Amino acid sequence: MISVKNKIYDRKQISVLSTKKIYSGEVSIRVDRFRLNNKTIEKEIVEHPPSIGLIPVIDGTCILFVTQYRHAAGRTMLEIPAGKIEKGESPKQAALREMREEIGYTGKLSPILQWYLAPGYDTELMYVFVATDLQKINKKQNLDDDENIKVKRMKLTTAIKKCVSGEIKDCKTIAALLAYERIKSR
Amino acid sequence: MISVKNKIYDRKQISVLSTKKIYSGEVSIRVDRFRLNNKTIEKEIVEHPPSIGLIPVIDGTCILFVTQYRHAAGRTMLEIPAGKIEKGESPKQAALREMREEIGYTGKLSPILQWYLAPGYDTELMYVFVATDLQKINKKQNLDDDENIKVKRMKLTTAIKKCVSGEIKDCKTIAALLAYERIKSR
Repeated sequence: MISVKNKIYDRKQISVLSTKKIYSGEVSIRVDRFRLNNKTIEKEIVEHPPSIGLIPVIDGTCILFVTQYRHAAGRTMLEIPAGKIEKGESPKQAALREMREEIGYTGKLSPILQWYLAPGYDTELMYVFVATDLQKINKKQNLDDDENIKVKRMKLTTAIKKCVSGEIKDCKTIAALLAYERIKSR
Repeated sequence: MISVKNKIYDRKQISVLSTKKIYSGEVSIRVDRFRLNNKTIEKEIVEHPPSIGLIPVIDGTCILFVTQYRHAAGRTMLEIPAGKIEKGESPKQAALREMREEIGYTGKLSPILQWYLAPGYDTELMYVFVATDLQKINKKQNLDDDENIKVKRMKLTTAIKKCVSGEIKDCKTIAALLAYERIKSR
């Protein structure tokens, strides 16, 4: 909630006139009509559950990443581990589960930031954690159908170079690494 | 395109078995069935046009931001100016138009990075520009219906503090400011 020239907007003060679900699935879409500044606005909203993103720090100076084929982007990408929060899970529980499933580790989690990925049309809010004191779990990866994940270890300094050179093309990964690099040196 | 243990994946090598449009609008949704690693995967893909994000630098040390109510997030947010690339526009043309419409300036654009906002399910690719040599245009803002934009000027150093303190909650804004801060000092 941010004050904008003495006006405070939040969901409660927006008068939603109608809401219509267009499609329900893993990702859903609805059309809302609402009043804002005496105008009626109709807008498509992509509904995505909240999610978690992880910065798993190993041996002090390295990060564990995943590479996977991303069909929406049509390419294989290097990203921090991330995933949806399932029903009934807390962000921390989801982060521990994703860490176990995607990279086969457990560890100590510290929340650092929360952010929206595309707040212009998408409800997804991501909770970002740093994971330290990592311990390997001898358990087979338990992946979703469309996950084709390889774990990749990289020095933080190398990864940060790839963020600013354009080699890493995932916004959450760039935001997470650059923010973590500043936060850890405070 | 990234090599993953000697396998190269790109869209051409993924065999799409079927694609079904579920909804068409400003944002669309389709369901694709495709083969990957000898498994058949069905996945919902949110289709969003490519977009631009802008870092407008004024007086050397300040950035121009926008604040606006974001219905998908249910809150007013501080963000860098951004917007869709319209049909027929280049990324640079879109960036110039958005800069004129959202903040009322023109300037010199330098591309810095490109990133996906949510590559797990969303096609949106954002082209990020730094804008310098800003000149005010005496033209009324020409905003979309759901834009309720206030322009806000802030020192880059102040904005970066807000990125790592959690006050700024928009992933592209955090990635853009932290990347720009590194790129400009190279």
